[in-house]
Amino acid sequence: MAYTHRVHYYETDKMAVVHHSNYIRWMEEARVDYLDQIGAGFAAMEARGLQSPVVSVACKYHRPTRFDDRVRIRVSVEKYNSIVLKVAYEMYNETTGELAATASSEHCFVNASGRPISIAKGWPDIDATLKEQVRGKN
Amino acid sequence: MAYTHRVHYYETDKMAVVHHSNYIRWMEEARVDYLDQIGAGFAAMEARGLQSPVVSVACKYHRPTRFDDRVRIRVSVEKYNSIVLKVAYEMYNETTGELAATASSEHCFVNASGRPISIAKGWPDIDATLKEQVRGKN
Amino acid sequence: MAYTHRVHYYETDKMAVVHHSNYIRWMEEARVDYLDQIGAGFAAMEARGLQSPVVSVACKYHRPTRFDDRVRIRVSVEKYNSIVLKVAYEMYNETTGELAATASSEHCFVNASGRPISIAKGWPDIDATLKEQVRGKN
Amino acid sequence: MAYTHRVHYYETDKMAVVHHSNYIRWMEEARVDYLDQIGAGFAAMEARGLQSPVVSVACKYHRPTRFDDRVRIRVSVEKYNSIVLKVAYEMYNETTGELAATASSEHCFVNASGRPISIAKGWPDIDATLKEQVRGKN
Repeated sequence: MAYTHRVHYYETDKMAVVHHSNYIRWMEEARVDYLDQIGAGFAAMEARGLQSPVVSVACKYHRPTRFDDRVRIRVSVEKYNSIVLKVAYEMYNETTGELAATASSEHCFVNASGRPISIAKGWPDIDATLKEQVRGKN
Repeated sequence: MAYTHRVHYYETDKMAVVHHSNYIRWMEEARVDYLDQIGAGFAAMEARGLQSPVVSVACKYHRPTRFDDRVRIRVSVEKYNSIVLKVAYEMYNETTGELAATASSEHCFVNASGRPISIAKGWPDIDATLKEQVRGKN
Repeated sequence: MAYTHRVHYYETDKMAVVHHSNYIRWMEEARVDYLDQIGAGFAAMEARGLQSPVVSVACKYHRPTRFDDRVRIRVSVEKYNSIVLKVAYEMYNETTGELAATASSEHCFVNASGRPISIAKGWPDIDATLKEQVRGKN
Repeated sequence: MAYTHRVHYYETDKMAVVHHSNYIRWMEEARVDYLDQIGAGFAAMEARGLQSPVVSVACKYHRPTRFDDRVRIRVSVEKYNSIVLKVAYEMYNETTGELAATASSEHCFVNASGRPISIAKGWPDIDATLKEQVRGKN
């Protein structure tokens, strides 16, 4: 699945390209959209008392993106074991056809009180959905 | 009282000056610092069940500011009547000596459930402190 | 014309609603989209040596917006005289049906060296397009 | 050397902690301050036609930080070979005494036209300064 972000003027910096911190935000936009589409959306998860804090992020910047460029972000589940979710991102600049960035993020799951939990126990349907995604990748 | 903000690289845009939306954030930085100094700080207020949502903002941009500039922000209470607080801001670019921007923001007060309240009733000490500030101005 | 912004997680703050500074950024998103649609887009203007710095902004916050809400932003030209452009914004929360915010921004026009210019002289087609918009409003 | 960032209200998100993308911005703040202090500041480098785009970032989030917390960021040069600079960051929450995050960023160097260059050739003084930092670490 892919999500498209159009670059905003306020995302550029004085080098006239997108500031690198914004790619971390686009990863979140694309991840939110992805989880929504597979039926494990943030809003639904939070309504059921689940939150998924970010444990780590990493991003490699290959080519700059610029104001008004359309960036297509492909999201995939790299790893999932009911406790940790690892998501991978490929960002293509549709305007230039270039690979702009590759990235990954890791997430754990906590309940409303912030305690780490296993999804498999209280939310078996979300657990199954996420497992499906890893399988789907192979 | 004055607060100084040093311009970050990520606050610039492709015109090589600070993006105008950041001044709205600096207003908050300066307001938080100001309220802290007069003894009506955000953290203290929130610990006592008080929040002060922003009702309106306005900002006039006189001269651009740039990466690494030091911006001194003078904060004053323009109006306060226990229900609405109006704060004024003058932003000087210390690096160039120019007036960079003038601005204002209005705030109401709500309790933890988001209901509008009069500060005079439940928080007379904070009420007195804020009233003092308007008087102090004249 | 209307532009729709879906609220990102990173736009929320600890009051669990969108931080007020983001509306200023949405105004820019909607303005960019609007100017694009009427044929006076930012990218095209910049390619022709024109920039339109923000002279002032003002925003009234009526009702909060939240993560994942869809905000529809109606843009109109309130005033235009070849030297100053004033744009008005109405932001509706499509998710709740409420009016979320009303806002305005003023812009001047400068050439590549940052000098204020009259659009009527060097860019008569853009001038005509913008004048059309004010007329169109009445 | 250490840089201290006080957490702004607008940096929090609806989980009531700092949004993870902001740490990437704090890395830049701390890096700018560090390079300034060792005499290889951004402003000075840009004045001499040098820019240092970010090639990659990585950040591990150990413990959340909250509004008003003071975060102390220790910066060190992990690697430098005139072509690539790798910087490491340790972020401590001074308010709680906890290690909040560890991170790294890689940078290359380009001239005003965006072409990759070796610092050793045109900017031997900056080259020497940066080499000193790696040595200083051991």
